[in-house]
Order: sequence, then C-alpha cells, then structure tokens
Amino acid sequence: MLDGTAVLDERVAGTLFSEVTAITETAPGTYSAEVHPNWTIGGKPNGGYLLALLGRAATTVGHHTHVLATSAHYLSAPQPGSVVIHTELLRGGRSASQVRATLVQGETRCVEALLTAGELDPDAQPYWSAGVPARDFVDFDKSVRVPPQTPVGIEVLIMDEVDLRLDPTVLNFAFGAPSGAGELRGWLALGGNEDFDPCSLLFAVDAFPPATFEIASTGWVPTLELTAYVRALPAPGPLKVLQQAQLIEGQKVDEACFVWDSRGRLVAQATQLAGIRLG
Amino acid sequence: MLDGTAVLDERVAGTLFSEVTAITETAPGTYSAEVHPNWTIGGKPNGGYLLALLGRAATTVGHHTHVLATSAHYLSAPQPGSVVIHTELLRGGRSASQVRATLVQGETRCVEALLTAGELDPDAQPYWSAGVPARDFVDFDKSVRVPPQTPVGIEVLIMDEVDLRLDPTVLNFAFGAPSGAGELRGWLALGGNEDFDPCSLLFAVDAFPPATFEIASTGWVPTLELTAYVRALPAPGPLKVLQQAQLIEGQKVDEACFVWDSRGRLVAQATQLAGIRLG
Repeated sequence: MLDGTAVLDERVAGTLFSEVTAITETAPGTYSAEVHPNWTIGGKPNGGYLLALLGRAATTVGHHTHVLATSAHYLSAPQPGSVVIHTELLRGGRSASQVRATLVQGETRCVEALLTAGELDPDAQPYWSAGVPARDFVDFDKSVRVPPQTPVGIEVLIMDEVDLRLDPTVLNFAFGAPSGAGELRGWLALGGNEDFDPCSLLFAVDAFPPATFEIASTGWVPTLELTAYVRALPAPGPLKVLQQAQLIEGQKVDEACFVWDSRGRLVAQATQLAGIRLG
Repeated sequence: MLDGTAVLDERVAGTLFSEVTAITETAPGTYSAEVHPNWTIGGKPNGGYLLALLGRAATTVGHHTHVLATSAHYLSAPQPGSVVIHTELLRGGRSASQVRATLVQGETRCVEALLTAGELDPDAQPYWSAGVPARDFVDFDKSVRVPPQTPVGIEVLIMDEVDLRLDPTVLNFAFGAPSGAGELRGWLALGGNEDFDPCSLLFAVDAFPPATFEIASTGWVPTLELTAYVRALPAPGPLKVLQQAQLIEGQKVDEACFVWDSRGRLVAQATQLAGIRLG
C-alpha cells in the first residue's frame, strides 16, 4: 500500500498548483475560480488549497505581494467546480494590507478568511529562533510516498497531484499499530517542479494527513479553523513538514504544523482545530 | 520594581471583567460597548480584552454558548471609550455557530474576528494529550506580581486590574539580563475573585507580557493576528500560563500560548503574530 519506490517524475503529468489556483476578476474585488476535482480527500477539496485560492485573491485586491498571516473558518465544504471569491480590503496601510475573503459556491458560503499581506524581504535572516521543535528527518529519497487511498479505503486523489512523503518511522499506522505519538513528519513537493511561494505555503500547512493517524484510525477529520503564518520566502526544493497533535478532547483535536525549506529555514507555521470522532 | 508581596486582595477594588466586557444590543446583531481606560498597555487596549468583547457579541448573536475557536486581525488600536460591534452569523448549524464580528470606533474598523461557538461539555475528559510543553510552575504565592509599569517605563494600567504573576525564574529581564530563552510562565487571576469562562480565556491567552522580554528589551509589540482555541470549561481558580516565542525574523515574532486551569487541564491554546523592532 505504501510504496517507497514511487518517484516525483511519475506524477509530473498531474496538475500545476499555479493552474488549479488561478483566479479571474469578474468585478472589482470579486473573482471566479475552479476547484479542481483532483485536489480532494474523499471528494472534498483540501482546506489549505481553498485557503491558497483566498490568498491569491487577497494579494490581488491588496497592495502587497505576500500573505503573512491568515486565519480561515470553514463553513461548508464546496464541491469541486466553480466558486466565487468575494474580497473586501479592510485596511490598506503602508506596510500591510488586511483583507477579508469569502469563498462562495452558489448560495452557500464555504470558507471565510482574514488575511494580512505584506512584503517579505528575500534577504531577511532569523534574528532569534527557539529552534524547537527540532527533529531529525529521514532523507526525501528514503521517505515513503503516500498513496491516493487511506488505510480505511478513502480516495485521496490529491496524493497523485503532489509528492508527499512520510518518514518511515511515523508509518506505524499503516501497519495497524499507531505509535500513539500524535506526530507525522516528512516532505512535500509540488508537481511540475513548481517552487513554493507564500500562497502555496498556505496549502503546505494543511497538506499532511492528520497527525492523529499515529493515535487512532478515524474517519474524516474536518478542519474548523486554520491559521497560517508565512515567515520567509521559501527556497526552491521540497519542504520538510512536521504535523503535531496536542490534545484530543470533546471530539476536537488541535494540530500544529511547522514547515522548513531546503535551506532549513522555518518558512511557515500553522495551527488548526478540527473535528474528530474520538473522545 | 517587581514586588512579590503584592497580593490579590489589594486590587479587588479594580474593575470586574464581566463589567468591562458588558455589551448592549442597539440593533439586531449590533452592540455597543465601552473600552475601559484601565485595561490598557501604554494607553492601548489589550488585544485579548478586545477579542473577549467580540466573543461576548458572537455568543449573543449565535445559538451557542461557548467560544471554541476565534481568529482576530488587528487593524487599528481603538482609544478607550465607546465602540460598536457589528456581527454577522455566517452559518448557524446544529453543533456550531460561525460568526464574523467587527469592532468599530467612529469611522475606523479596529478589529475583525471570525468566531466559531459551540457547547463545551463540563464532563468532557481528555481522550489523548501530548502533554507538551510540560513545565514546572513555581507556586502562585511564590510568583512575582507584575507591576503597572514596564522596565522601560511604559504604563501598564491593566496590571492593577488583574493579578498576573511571573515565575521568578523568568524575571531575568527585570534585572537587565534576559536569559535568551524566549519564554514566560506564571499565573493569572481576575479581580473580584471572578472565575474564568470561555470569553475571559480569550483575554487570558493575550494577557502576558511578550515572551520576547526574555530575549531583548523592545518597545510596543503590536499583535497583528491572534488565534485562540478554548478546549474545556475552566475550573475556578488562577490559571497557569505559558507564553513561548518561536522565531523573530523580518521584524515579526510569533508566540504560542498554553493555559491550564487549577485542575491542571489544558483549557486554552493560542498563537499570535506580532510586530517587533528587532531583526
């Protein structure tokens, strides 16, 4: 089921992230987009992918290039197909644009997000870093590509569109024996050798399977809220991703996500609260 | 400057949290409120206090009692005094209400937040916990109450309204020798022996001084984005609070916050991205 021999080149025929997040302005501040049917888990569009669509709209309507901070609340999962994005520039300052963006399908509001955009300096250096949570990552080539189907048989078409590899030491769930550690780590690359940018980092922070895979097997873990901070312009190459659960209680789980680029720089951080059928 | 002998009773004459977060409906979904001049740092209202005002509005307009997840973007700091809160119920489901709330002063939008409210079960128990970040806390009575003035002379009137105590081991900054650890921990209690609830937890996650105090002395560290998850109904008594910085880069710092109640249960988690004059 998990096949370490699959390689990046095999899925270059897949969609390009820049294409599946294309938006078209139809009125001032209003955009149309097509949610691609392959960027889905069990038929439902990935939440980070939807957030990236809102990021594209926010950086188009605002006066700044890079999403720095965004927080999304998920109202109703859209179907693949046509959606409309409504934006409002809440404040356009010198150093930042603050934007509200809402993804709508038909009459249904699906996702609403607040986004702060600014300019990331490509020459910025960390002034101070706690260096946590430090982890050793098994090499990209020795990590195991996640197939387009979950252990419980749910179709995850998005795994054919990106190259997502898990560290072999966090694959206990795949053998029916989750470690209980509540942590997944591995690598992420886009199709077509596309490099990451601040918008695709919004996808990267929600690309991994739930960290709860290493706790217990569950059904869908729907994201209720997702917050992402983009901290630096990512260097070309695959990203290292660490996804950690902290607490499962009252049928909710939170997860923290940390993303490093090929230079080893922390380029994005995120937290999410999701529903889960445990506890 | 830091006086461990100050005790809770000395400031019971201060304001009550329930009073300074009172809201009055003036039209369907619109509320008026008064931002109290004492709940300020250098004359600017505390961001968590403003978020709690939005939490009160969201749980009034929605069909659910407890804020579960909220994310706020700070547009412009209001002055103490009259503000108006506009709300819109984005989705009212069976298990959750999702609300947009905007705090406005005059013609200026000051804070916009998205909030998901639901019902927290008082009998819920943790199903799984990573138990991190585990820390030993010095007892409340042996911790040091923060005075209403910062080391660099900024007036922090809010410290007379609440009882915020820092662990003596994180007070290196007060002696001009920050440890470099980027972490503060201590205790928080409200005036008048008021117990915490989900709305006042939204204040608790932003009550502490910046964790950067233990890195370098800086001026104002304005919050750009604040996300808070309320995980359980808090038991009566003071809260334990841990505030941690992760990365300072490009004049931005992120901080994570963890809040435990007197039972030792994790009741709230938060992250924020703030501006800082370092890096």
